Amino acid sequence: MAKMTPISGFPEWLPEQKLAEDRVVRTLAAVYASHGFVPIETPAVELIETLSSKGVVDREIYSIKRYHAEGEEEAALGLHFDLTVPFARYVAQHMAKLSFPFKRYQMQKVWRGERPQKGRFREFYQFDIDTIARDELPLSCDAEVLHVFLKAFKLMALGPFRMSVNSRKVLHGCYSSLGLAEAQRKAAIIAVDKLHKVGKDGVMKELGSAAGVAPDVAARILDLTAVQCAPRDFVRITGSLGISDPLFDAGVGELRDIFALIPEAFHDFILVDLSLARGLDYYTGIIFETQMTDFPEFGSVASGGRYENLASQFTSQKLPGVGGSIGLSRLMELAFTNGLLSTEQRTFAKVLVSVLSEEQRPRCNEVAEELRAEGIPVEVYFKSPKLGKQIDFAASKGIPYILFVSEDGAGIEVKDLQSKEQRLVSDLKAWGRSLLA
Amino acid sequence: MAKMTPISGFPEWLPEQKLAEDRVVRTLAAVYASHGFVPIETPAVELIETLSSKGVVDREIYSIKRYHAEGEEEAALGLHFDLTVPFARYVAQHMAKLSFPFKRYQMQKVWRGERPQKGRFREFYQFDIDTIARDELPLSCDAEVLHVFLKAFKLMALGPFRMSVNSRKVLHGCYSSLGLAEAQRKAAIIAVDKLHKVGKDGVMKELGSAAGVAPDVAARILDLTAVQCAPRDFVRITGSLGISDPLFDAGVGELRDIFALIPEAFHDFILVDLSLARGLDYYTGIIFETQMTDFPEFGSVASGGRYENLASQFTSQKLPGVGGSIGLSRLMELAFTNGLLSTEQRTFAKVLVSVLSEEQRPRCNEVAEELRAEGIPVEVYFKSPKLGKQIDFAASKGIPYILFVSEDGAGIEVKDLQSKEQRLVSDLKAWGRSLLA
Repeated sequence: MAKMTPISGFPEWLPEQKLAEDRVVRTLAAVYASHGFVPIETPAVELIETLSSKGVVDREIYSIKRYHAEGEEEAALGLHFDLTVPFARYVAQHMAKLSFPFKRYQMQKVWRGERPQKGRFREFYQFDIDTIARDELPLSCDAEVLHVFLKAFKLMALGPFRMSVNSRKVLHGCYSSLGLAEAQRKAAIIAVDKLHKVGKDGVMKELGSAAGVAPDVAARILDLTAVQCAPRDFVRITGSLGISDPLFDAGVGELRDIFALIPEAFHDFILVDLSLARGLDYYTGIIFETQMTDFPEFGSVASGGRYENLASQFTSQKLPGVGGSIGLSRLMELAFTNGLLSTEQRTFAKVLVSVLSEEQRPRCNEVAEELRAEGIPVEVYFKSPKLGKQIDFAASKGIPYILFVSEDGAGIEVKDLQSKEQRLVSDLKAWGRSLLA
Repeated sequence: MAKMTPISGFPEWLPEQKLAEDRVVRTLAAVYASHGFVPIETPAVELIETLSSKGVVDREIYSIKRYHAEGEEEAALGLHFDLTVPFARYVAQHMAKLSFPFKRYQMQKVWRGERPQKGRFREFYQFDIDTIARDELPLSCDAEVLHVFLKAFKLMALGPFRMSVNSRKVLHGCYSSLGLAEAQRKAAIIAVDKLHKVGKDGVMKELGSAAGVAPDVAARILDLTAVQCAPRDFVRITGSLGISDPLFDAGVGELRDIFALIPEAFHDFILVDLSLARGLDYYTGIIFETQMTDFPEFGSVASGGRYENLASQFTSQKLPGVGGSIGLSRLMELAFTNGLLSTEQRTFAKVLVSVLSEEQRPRCNEVAEELRAEGIPVEVYFKSPKLGKQIDFAASKGIPYILFVSEDGAGIEVKDLQSKEQRLVSDLKAWGRSLLA
């Protein structure tokens, strides 16, 4: 017998979990589609050259190789490690055939060639959205992306969540007002991003060593990370920080304008958090992360931001964008582990047509087809054993109704497996439609 | 600039093609779900040991390797080349948590590590269904799989199609009645499977060389491949072949019973075809292939059959099954190349809310949200340029309606971009609901 050891880092769900994940995916896709985002998909495989930005393979990439390659030469290929790089390549490659602003959603697996370790996925789904424009992208797009993410988390209904929001311009402005040059500011952002991992002392140390910041300035930078407030208090509170800097003012103004375009009802889910820095260097405006607040130690499950140029490595066309990514598989893992998502549903079938003898199967199939034509998923029992077995089957699958067809095929009775009531069905199609209501 | 050369064999669709593919996928999933099939998904990655049946890597497998592996030892991993092997591993591994008969659908990419060559995909979607039982699987399941496939092709509405059906038992029975031993019969099946590729002479030759069949018997085998008939004529025509063999009789009886369980309306799409043999050695009963009849040279786009034991390499539990696979990406390629599938839809949005000044954007967003609450996908224009630009945008995306919000925010007018008519909307929600009808 071959081994069946699960491979660490490659998650696999049971059917009822996959059904639950599919419901979440449909919810997300519907939200994105309702705002005019369109789906795209790219191959899992890209040239290693594409995946390696500026020639350096700086992420844990899986390369792929034909097992029976017999030494032929072919361009080196690898599995994508995120959806941003393939999306950039896609937009640059198909630019003439896309209409801008290009708003896309994309749900695909990504692979990370990491050392196997507990809790780390090496294959997982990301669900991304981005809005890209040529040359210039107004703040209405930032607001829409945030609005859509907030809606998505509300509709997934996995429990309380909070979106932390900040702006790279606000951070650069703060640090600039403290006298940091651009390279120092970038190093300071990388240091501050590690606050939750290495603590205040760790950040202090890195601000000194990597950003070359004096201890009193570093302390001031750390003070700023404590600033957290609701969107409604944000202009007042940032105004009281005593920072005078044009970049800072621009960042504050942008956030204010973005919040003004997000319906008030969603403001309670937003926290302006000046400790939020994000590690990736390409963000230039708003940045955000999303936490399930009952599970703070789990970290962010969705994040993103605004960037100046999506695809500078592929095209000279400037393509500013704003977008974000939900770590879908991680979120599902959290949901399954903590019962945040019902996995009660084990089948789409709402009705089991019992089969009392093989002679009546054709008639049972007809009955099932009549209900399916009304939009009711129906299972017909695959054998014709004693009724008890068929009722057990329906119960074990969570199918709520079981139908009995009379020997002459004319009469149909239905049993409600919850109430145990049994009654004649005079109008099958009407009864079927009543299940949809 | 990095290269953007498409990698041969890794197809990628434009957004409007992806929208069309998604519609096909929803159609297929809905058909399968309506019969009680449930979705599963397995990782793209399996142990090479799992992928290599009986220790031999006999398919073109892509192995994967961490780019920065630094010489650590880990089990060899590869990308799955079909969904059958992962499904077998899945069922064996999770057997205790599944309920049987287990009916699953599974749409995933598979990878074939082939030499790059024109027209061959190296990454593509397959959409599989299978019904698996413990120990014994009745013919009702074969009939359901065929019925579901026939429905699926009808509902995809890609043009005329035909399902060719045969039975391994019928073939073994025929060859047995001609005096062939089991090993010879298996070799004969492999030879006959190549008929459309190598022609009659080629099959004749292989029947002699590989199956050790005398020329007169080989000629008789070739004669049998000419037998084609409708399901309604099948018992009569096979009865007139003068074959007396218990396996043959059993196969004929099974096909007859299966056809009896498929609604008459679908029989016109079925052709019993004794030249159909299928190359894979695990089939034991019914076998089928499906062609788009306007494109015979394209070959089969969906195929499958009955097998005795799904997962003998993983478990001693006998798991007979019946199922099949649609080569989704190949089918989409055919559909796109030949215009079988509309790619008119370029967005889900049914309405564009125009924005005449940034001051009115919040009100425009409110209007959009009211419509979205009624289930209407709505796009709000991202900037506020002259109206002509916004109308052009709606037209280029195929959005049928454009809304204008009055300066005071109270009045809303709608323009139908097809009829060019413009009128006041007095009840926005009611108007929205009218779009759904």
